[in-house]
Amino acid sequence: MTGQDRADGSVVSGHFMNPLEDTQSQQDTRQVPIQRVGIRGLRYPVTLLCPGGAAVPTVVSATLLASLDASERGTHMSRFATLMHEYRDHIDPRHLLEMAAKLRASLKAETAQIILTFPWFVEKVAPITGQPGMVDYEVTWDVTVSDAVPRFLTSVVVPIATVCPCSKAISERGAHNQRGELTLTLASAAPPWLDDVIRIAEASASCELYSVLKRPDEKFVTERAYDSPSFVEDVVRQAALGLRALPGIQAFRAQAENFESIHSHNAFAMVEEGW
Amino acid sequence: MTGQDRADGSVVSGHFMNPLEDTQSQQDTRQVPIQRVGIRGLRYPVTLLCPGGAAVPTVVSATLLASLDASERGTHMSRFATLMHEYRDHIDPRHLLEMAAKLRASLKAETAQIILTFPWFVEKVAPITGQPGMVDYEVTWDVTVSDAVPRFLTSVVVPIATVCPCSKAISERGAHNQRGELTLTLASAAPPWLDDVIRIAEASASCELYSVLKRPDEKFVTERAYDSPSFVEDVVRQAALGLRALPGIQAFRAQAENFESIHSHNAFAMVEEGW
Amino acid sequence: MTGQDRADGSVVSGHFMNPLEDTQSQQDTRQVPIQRVGIRGLRYPVTLLCPGGAAVPTVVSATLLASLDASERGTHMSRFATLMHEYRDHIDPRHLLEMAAKLRASLKAETAQIILTFPWFVEKVAPITGQPGMVDYEVTWDVTVSDAVPRFLTSVVVPIATVCPCSKAISERGAHNQRGELTLTLASAAPPWLDDVIRIAEASASCELYSVLKRPDEKFVTERAYDSPSFVEDVVRQAALGLRALPGIQAFRAQAENFESIHSHNAFAMVEEGW
Amino acid sequence: MTGQDRADGSVVSGHFMNPLEDTQSQQDTRQVPIQRVGIRGLRYPVTLLCPGGAAVPTVVSATLLASLDASERGTHMSRFATLMHEYRDHIDPRHLLEMAAKLRASLKAETAQIILTFPWFVEKVAPITGQPGMVDYEVTWDVTVSDAVPRFLTSVVVPIATVCPCSKAISERGAHNQRGELTLTLASAAPPWLDDVIRIAEASASCELYSVLKRPDEKFVTERAYDSPSFVEDVVRQAALGLRALPGIQAFRAQAENFESIHSHNAFAMVEEGW
Repeated sequence: MTGQDRADGSVVSGHFMNPLEDTQSQQDTRQVPIQRVGIRGLRYPVTLLCPGGAAVPTVVSATLLASLDASERGTHMSRFATLMHEYRDHIDPRHLLEMAAKLRASLKAETAQIILTFPWFVEKVAPITGQPGMVDYEVTWDVTVSDAVPRFLTSVVVPIATVCPCSKAISERGAHNQRGELTLTLASAAPPWLDDVIRIAEASASCELYSVLKRPDEKFVTERAYDSPSFVEDVVRQAALGLRALPGIQAFRAQAENFESIHSHNAFAMVEEGW
Repeated sequence: MTGQDRADGSVVSGHFMNPLEDTQSQQDTRQVPIQRVGIRGLRYPVTLLCPGGAAVPTVVSATLLASLDASERGTHMSRFATLMHEYRDHIDPRHLLEMAAKLRASLKAETAQIILTFPWFVEKVAPITGQPGMVDYEVTWDVTVSDAVPRFLTSVVVPIATVCPCSKAISERGAHNQRGELTLTLASAAPPWLDDVIRIAEASASCELYSVLKRPDEKFVTERAYDSPSFVEDVVRQAALGLRALPGIQAFRAQAENFESIHSHNAFAMVEEGW
Repeated sequence: MTGQDRADGSVVSGHFMNPLEDTQSQQDTRQVPIQRVGIRGLRYPVTLLCPGGAAVPTVVSATLLASLDASERGTHMSRFATLMHEYRDHIDPRHLLEMAAKLRASLKAETAQIILTFPWFVEKVAPITGQPGMVDYEVTWDVTVSDAVPRFLTSVVVPIATVCPCSKAISERGAHNQRGELTLTLASAAPPWLDDVIRIAEASASCELYSVLKRPDEKFVTERAYDSPSFVEDVVRQAALGLRALPGIQAFRAQAENFESIHSHNAFAMVEEGW
Repeated sequence: MTGQDRADGSVVSGHFMNPLEDTQSQQDTRQVPIQRVGIRGLRYPVTLLCPGGAAVPTVVSATLLASLDASERGTHMSRFATLMHEYRDHIDPRHLLEMAAKLRASLKAETAQIILTFPWFVEKVAPITGQPGMVDYEVTWDVTVSDAVPRFLTSVVVPIATVCPCSKAISERGAHNQRGELTLTLASAAPPWLDDVIRIAEASASCELYSVLKRPDEKFVTERAYDSPSFVEDVVRQAALGLRALPGIQAFRAQAENFESIHSHNAFAMVEEGW
């Protein structure tokens, strides 16, 4: 399904004599405004422009949406993918706002929204041996523009380790622990840099994760995690304290999910403020 | 991670001499209330009690959650799974409300929420030959109880076929079409029966889907779909008209996603009212 | 896409005057035999017939396939789903062989294969308090019939806990541990019962998992796991010893994947014999 | 779980007085050789070195494995991630072979295997208007080294469109069609370039897919697909003919899966030769 961006499609091609019928521009009489219409699951190679000036390549999964008046039958689907193509080499929060504003203007829509999800990598060194390795986080930027103030949401999924305080307290030796994921979502006028959000998340767990750990490092992270046991409830509370202290935050949500090593189901906790 | 439901754990087992430390019941001084804590991804075999009296087995993926006061460190995790075990043989909207109320009372929580997602099957006969086959839908029941009126959400994912009206109008022969998914979510005091929601969804598409189609049936569905072309926007608008007419509906959302046969990304549209 | 199972489609319906063209039965001149063709991702409600006589409902994801001679253009797709419909109330290894044989005969195919994947639940009691709860496993039955002896594969995914022996040995306190999955796949003339395979898998880990654990149980599983540290290599070796001892086994594969709590990637090991 | 790569871990850190116990290097007496052990799901940012000299960034999901003798208890897990880190800036078939050889030598293993899966993008222009857009494919490179000749497998998942020949032949108007995925896997001494494999795949379908299509383009692809109806069987046969003609191919497999627009299950076909 795709739209026709000019009044006269026949100019574009010699394959047909008459203008192609513009089905999308038909009047719609059902009186149902559409809050969002567009494309999802568009995987695209992009370059992220980082605060310090670095240009970092990654791959996004993109959702581009706009509202549609009750009177119009269809939107112009090809413009969404074209917009992604135009901006693929300079993606950052400021350009995302620009993209959404451009989409909104071009479609004469009340609202436009762009959501990009992508892996973000941080090079970490092992805590004792200093061996380097990249750790991956999943980031989502979600921007909405309308007549109101733009809304910018940043969301980061951070893998963490948690040692169960109950298991530690009641057991004569050992304590069950596991990998978990802490997802921090926050609304802010000027989005904080990703590494600042990741730092808050990793400080909320029993221990942070690494890609490369040699034996002395493994001893260190094992003992450190054991010394900082955290329920899934503790993790989201610590994250909440960290997020409250971030400058410019309007609202946040912290969600922790532990892949419990004693169950085949997960433990989950969520704190949200300011929404 | 699991809680201790009695005052004195030592009664339960001779493996230890003193009561086990009750870490979860410790005071928490961080002043961060937790909106939701509990378990996710608990897969369980259940029996659904249907309006006509039928008892239908299926498998749920369950999420059971409760709020936690700022002053308490941890919830009692074992109660969530135990509750699912107790109710596994009689699942329906009324019992879900009862489960949530029981969870809330047992944990002295402000709020309790239970979310079950499960496949639901309808036996359909092929439109011409009458050959029978089961079609699967994915259902979510999501109930929240607190001091306020309970909130009951029903969500059904319905696979559909859509023929693109633009492609049909501009092409000399054929028209691109594809499978899509229409997800209807609705809030209501007394939840409508699943088959009524499915009927609305299937009537909103170019054609409904079947598991078994012989050649005369395939001719029928091909022509029927071609005769009812629908943009993703048309699908959600038709669904909205259908949902508005359902008795007892408080709010709804219709989301259509087409696995476009001309793109590797999807087309998406959403209408919501009453939230 | 669906096949026509009778010579004359016009008998079936009055919607058309002439027999429907039988495209699938056209001659194919490309000289490319097709090893497998059929349907995948057919979700179906079924009843499993268990050795002791119990009839257990579950939901399968079904793949039904057959070979196709180089000279035939297409298979008869509707027969695959119809076969699933016929057998849905009596699924067990013997009936699966019968289904595959029937499919093969009906399509005059050299080979037919049926693969069913489904959740299987075992009620377990917590090790100290005796609290009951269902634990879920994912099972795959994969049967192939041809002129040769039928091949029957059973595969079970078992969630497990593993405590790292290295972390335990080098750390002054604690030891990292995590959830993992041990997948056992085996070829046998008479497939062993699922619970026997699960028992081998759970005995190969640091500890098995439960759905409901109260505090005394949690103490027990924590200490037990800590006392039985297992590398991912240890897990597959123990499983191999157990599988070798199963009567009637022709070949097996044991694959363990640990969701490492110190990394965001997984540890993996595989042993196979007899293929 | 991680290995110790030096004889004396105590040099690295002052956190402990004595060398850390080397659990992995313990003798194993179970007599079970391990065919593969290592890491899976390591997501890493890499640079692909392309035949023409271009350096293309992407993100891989990496699996790195080695065999382990029956006499050794554990492998050295940290070396797998370290190897990925070392080679992240120059990934191509030649370097993958080098990586695997290095891993094998460093671990004194009989066999080493490296599997990378990554999105690969091709800029395509719309067939009539020439509008540009990136289309994504999923590629897997899988290299195994041992005493024998190295085995190099290339696998590409290509999204395609298929129009059903039966539906077209029997219907008075229209024809059901859908998105599908054609996966081509091939073994070769010198792996063919990705774009050559993609070309074979796209030529085997009713029509290839695009990211950006304006109305004249949509008319073109609709009619083109309608004029080239293809069963899932036709798709894999066409692919087989194309793959047979690729120079240096030792074996191949073509698998097509159609997300049928008239069913909620998929149609599937597979041809393989030379294995």
